Amino acid sequence: MGSPEDARLLGEGSRRVQVLRLAEGVARRVPDRVVHEEPLEIRLGAAPVAVVMRTPGQDLELVTGFLVTEGVVERAEQIHSVRHCSQATEPAAEDNVVRVTLAADVPVDVERLRRNLFASSSCGICGKASLDRVLATAAPLEEDPARFSAARLLSLPEQMRASQRVFEQTGGLHAAGLFDPGGRLQVVREDVGRHNAVDKVIGWAARAGRLPLRGHALLVSGRVSFEVVQKALAARIPLVAAVSAPSSLAVSLAEASGMALVGFLRAPCLNVYAGSRRIALD
Amino acid sequence: MGSPEDARLLGEGSRRVQVLRLAEGVARRVPDRVVHEEPLEIRLGAAPVAVVMRTPGQDLELVTGFLVTEGVVERAEQIHSVRHCSQATEPAAEDNVVRVTLAADVPVDVERLRRNLFASSSCGICGKASLDRVLATAAPLEEDPARFSAARLLSLPEQMRASQRVFEQTGGLHAAGLFDPGGRLQVVREDVGRHNAVDKVIGWAARAGRLPLRGHALLVSGRVSFEVVQKALAARIPLVAAVSAPSSLAVSLAEASGMALVGFLRAPCLNVYAGSRRIALD
Repeated sequence: MGSPEDARLLGEGSRRVQVLRLAEGVARRVPDRVVHEEPLEIRLGAAPVAVVMRTPGQDLELVTGFLVTEGVVERAEQIHSVRHCSQATEPAAEDNVVRVTLAADVPVDVERLRRNLFASSSCGICGKASLDRVLATAAPLEEDPARFSAARLLSLPEQMRASQRVFEQTGGLHAAGLFDPGGRLQVVREDVGRHNAVDKVIGWAARAGRLPLRGHALLVSGRVSFEVVQKALAARIPLVAAVSAPSSLAVSLAEASGMALVGFLRAPCLNVYAGSRRIALD
Repeated sequence: MGSPEDARLLGEGSRRVQVLRLAEGVARRVPDRVVHEEPLEIRLGAAPVAVVMRTPGQDLELVTGFLVTEGVVERAEQIHSVRHCSQATEPAAEDNVVRVTLAADVPVDVERLRRNLFASSSCGICGKASLDRVLATAAPLEEDPARFSAARLLSLPEQMRASQRVFEQTGGLHAAGLFDPGGRLQVVREDVGRHNAVDKVIGWAARAGRLPLRGHALLVSGRVSFEVVQKALAARIPLVAAVSAPSSLAVSLAEASGMALVGFLRAPCLNVYAGSRRIALD
């Protein structure tokens, strides 16, 4: 702690509460902090396309990342502007609506986007169909002779934890970190929602003009679902690692797209669930 | 393990994979299991209203609970039928679409439901508005002189863990458990999605004719978000406890609805974030 920047982030990322703490049979009222959760509505022009429950703080990154990982844009230049709504009906709401204007030549089908997000179009949904749909919009990853060393991989969780101190007192956040091909931490983002932390990281990279993220690795603090792998694929990240377990569909999508998927990354151990050719094990 | 029922659940709940495990510098191919994740589409009549990524196994409970916690129905009797789609376009998809037919006198507005789930209706979204919207459809909880003892609360996580053995080998699941007013475990459900585990528990109770769940307690294995509190409120559960942290909006909604909210429930300690009058601390 200490810097004004930290204090600002802490103010947005967590809220003060009074808590009744019972320990060893004794109950006391003590101050505590909980992670901040608020809804965010994303609008394309005037059309609302989604509401996500998120931790306030990096909303423009979150929305930019969301647009990339949902396949609306491929680069930040395709976004003309992304900003908070200034016509909110009450001051508290102003921070919770973000309006996006796309560049003039970017086609967008709001109905299709809503459908993709929330419902399939036929009585034919299944894991296989989900994989096919993702791979229809995002091609499999390019092969790459460069490999990520296992020793470097084992160092990632400690690097990410070291930069999570701002929020560590709430115990309520998912974290995602992006590492360059040399295994150096580029950015860490945290959120009450697992997918949001990933969208914030990818949005950060998009706004920094760094997409596609060839050769990079994404680390998530918890489990890896299908959607996390899908989001990484949209940003062309060839290696996803998690401190905890992957799901079956996450493994299937990693295999189908040529991505390396690492789980239970806890030095000195790790499990490779897919794409082991991208990892140098010695 | 051992019983055929366990084997069946394990078959649905997890999938076999081959994994390359690195430990202490030695890499070996070993068999492993990952939690099963597949999409499920929920239809009201012919209209798709949502797709959730879930762990297959208790789909009809999941969908019943979803309808209760989204405010579509209050009791299972309002559902005429809930079953898997039999007109799927391919065999693998049959298990992933559930069609609901409501009783003839139950009004339903599919557009309103979709809007509730995925977008707000004005540029006025905020935490306060989210609370107001929930409380407009679910009244605050009744006061109750009966209190849940702290000693009983401290015993809940161990009770739930003891019945989670079927899936414990995958490490990839959220769990939710329902306890009666005497602190006895009624049901545990697990899922790759945190909200789904809660919907399955509430759907189980609905199908058993046990709603509303006055005097009961809900335990979740991880964190408590706004949506978990909202779902518990829809089923009239007056006490929600979590092994990990609550979010700010979860605390606000528990306060506004008169619910007790307990976090970091790890014997011999716990934190009470709201509704401490429902808990006997000695």
